[in-house]
Amino acid sequence: MPFLKRVFRKKDEFGLTLERIIGFYPHQISIYQQAFLHKSLTQNNQLKSFESNERLEFLGDAILDSIISHYLFNKFPKKDEGYLTMLRSRLVSRQTLNNLGVKIGLQELIKSNLDRASKSIYGDALEALIGAIYLDKGYGFAQKFVEEKLLQNHIDIDEVMQTETDFKSRVIEWCQKEKLSFDFEITEQEEKNEKLYTAVLLVNKEFKGKGIAFTKKKAEQLAAEQYYNKKSL
Amino acid sequence: MPFLKRVFRKKDEFGLTLERIIGFYPHQISIYQQAFLHKSLTQNNQLKSFESNERLEFLGDAILDSIISHYLFNKFPKKDEGYLTMLRSRLVSRQTLNNLGVKIGLQELIKSNLDRASKSIYGDALEALIGAIYLDKGYGFAQKFVEEKLLQNHIDIDEVMQTETDFKSRVIEWCQKEKLSFDFEITEQEEKNEKLYTAVLLVNKEFKGKGIAFTKKKAEQLAAEQYYNKKSL
Repeated sequence: MPFLKRVFRKKDEFGLTLERIIGFYPHQISIYQQAFLHKSLTQNNQLKSFESNERLEFLGDAILDSIISHYLFNKFPKKDEGYLTMLRSRLVSRQTLNNLGVKIGLQELIKSNLDRASKSIYGDALEALIGAIYLDKGYGFAQKFVEEKLLQNHIDIDEVMQTETDFKSRVIEWCQKEKLSFDFEITEQEEKNEKLYTAVLLVNKEFKGKGIAFTKKKAEQLAAEQYYNKKSL
Repeated sequence: MPFLKRVFRKKDEFGLTLERIIGFYPHQISIYQQAFLHKSLTQNNQLKSFESNERLEFLGDAILDSIISHYLFNKFPKKDEGYLTMLRSRLVSRQTLNNLGVKIGLQELIKSNLDRASKSIYGDALEALIGAIYLDKGYGFAQKFVEEKLLQNHIDIDEVMQTETDFKSRVIEWCQKEKLSFDFEITEQEEKNEKLYTAVLLVNKEFKGKGIAFTKKKAEQLAAEQYYNKKSL
């Protein structure tokens, strides 16, 4: 593949940088190269759509979810599924992944056609990298990478647990600052003799987030949290 | 645990039934027992909330997503991420999982306090079972179970690919039959110089599904599909 050879000219340098980041020298190096090819490279036919890192991101996203789920399952043996789901969504939020991608230095490896990269490029590449490690070395290696290189080094789980959860207030403050209208629309339904509330967050009348819960307050918080995580407010 | 001993009195029978379903004799049998304890058993304090199958369902859901993602990644090497995501969402839809749970015979093993079980109890137990296999025997075994016992035996992937995708029409027909009002609310936003549409499906003015896409039509289809999969229409 002449294009790949050109962008990753110094092959050893790529492998060594990667080794510094992931903790081992990659075996099938071309899989890792693909993990850093942003979809913007497909614009002028340098790449076909299936050659960018989006397929690996699709795979890595699912693998990461599994690894985090198992980690939380073991760490909190007496917490119910709702609590685990809440913690997982924080650990794999776009904001967390984007920050992690930069912290471990992925910006040195990413190839794109963008003049100015959006933050999500780093989170996406991190997911693609996890997909590449999984394909190259298997599930156990991917798990080791996530637990040792990401969670242990860069995530304070106690801090994540105690993160201020008043997302509604944050969203409202932000909307007021930006002079945007906002509204939480609540609807209710009966589900096995219990009332279930759906809150839909509208910002400038556009749908921005949704939450479903057994209390109105919680549903609003979830809708606000969804928007908060997407926007990295 | 006296409660567990009571509900799974015939321990050998449980293990043998399970062996017939999963293809091997379980090692840590108590994990599998938990996979079949429906949360309704927590109602009169027979179980604590973390002792029902919901935690295993949380884990198994993520493991299943990974396994299906890898399967599709390999099976369709030239398809982009959007196509893989669409196929995955069909393969792991509530409807598919509920049907699979019944097809492989999980109803023989599930313990609940319900007089009449809702369909989702089977899909949930199937996810919990995948979580149990993963914990008991590791990722490779869970992968083998999903690929050989579920996909090969019970899923026609060509049929899934060709499934009629006009979810909007199906939802509309169903609403008309049930005499419910319905509405697709479309909002648009600019994203990197492209228009992105969000469709929100309201049935009897209640939020029922959401889709985001680069065309209005696709966004509506996705919103309808979300509702379709949840409802098993």
